[in-house]
Amino acid sequence: MAFELHPRLSQDCFELGSLKLCRLLLMNDSQYPWFVLVPQHEGVREIYELSELDQFELMRESSRLSRAMVRLFNPDKLNIAALGNIVPQLHLHHIARFVTDPAWPAPVWGKLPSQPYLEPRRRAVIEALKGELAQAVEWVER
Amino acid sequence: MAFELHPRLSQDCFELGSLKLCRLLLMNDSQYPWFVLVPQHEGVREIYELSELDQFELMRESSRLSRAMVRLFNPDKLNIAALGNIVPQLHLHHIARFVTDPAWPAPVWGKLPSQPYLEPRRRAVIEALKGELAQAVEWVER
Repeated sequence: MAFELHPRLSQDCFELGSLKLCRLLLMNDSQYPWFVLVPQHEGVREIYELSELDQFELMRESSRLSRAMVRLFNPDKLNIAALGNIVPQLHLHHIARFVTDPAWPAPVWGKLPSQPYLEPRRRAVIEALKGELAQAVEWVER
Repeated sequence: MAFELHPRLSQDCFELGSLKLCRLLLMNDSQYPWFVLVPQHEGVREIYELSELDQFELMRESSRLSRAMVRLFNPDKLNIAALGNIVPQLHLHHIARFVTDPAWPAPVWGKLPSQPYLEPRRRAVIEALKGELAQAVEWVER
């Protein structure tokens, strides 16, 4: 079955494009730099359900995204998580956290109402992240 | 520098043993089956700081633990996360979640005061998990 992004992720996020394994999304909450990787396999809910090669590719894409986020935002900590209690489609959150952010040191989920991006900041964040990632990943047309 | 488990993890968890890369812990909160993998490298805070081989080994140990937890507890969802806002030493949470658990569908962190295990349940959970993992992993003496 062809992969389709879960409607809740489509609604809450902006799509940046496709890497070898994952769709890359920006969560529409300007309080934290918050990106999401979604392995493009229909029906997968847990990391261990991916093939071992895809698990390694997920790790590779996650670490490349992490390094790009660190270079770009210089956070105090990264939070990386596969939860999925509400959206069962496997997705891996990557959130740049700061001791000065409004939820610190709590996890961000369910803590504060999201604050949607305004232009031109949304575009700037997306272009900057894509620029940082450019040398590390291959974008896949779909 | 030799690896030492962060004192907060020592205090909050029971140590089950060492796998090839990670120390395996049981969080002392009987509300959820909750295990933690801690890569045994001193000074590492983020997954991307591990070598690529160790990242793959972390993924391997995480998936083996995940499968053992699913066989043993039959959860509705796994929550897997590297947060570290309070304890900076890299550690990967693995939590078996149920639609009937007291925090569902919220993440567990900071939601409810922990409920320490009583014997004989603590021993039973540890022995059962070790039994499920036995075929999949190699324990390392230290």
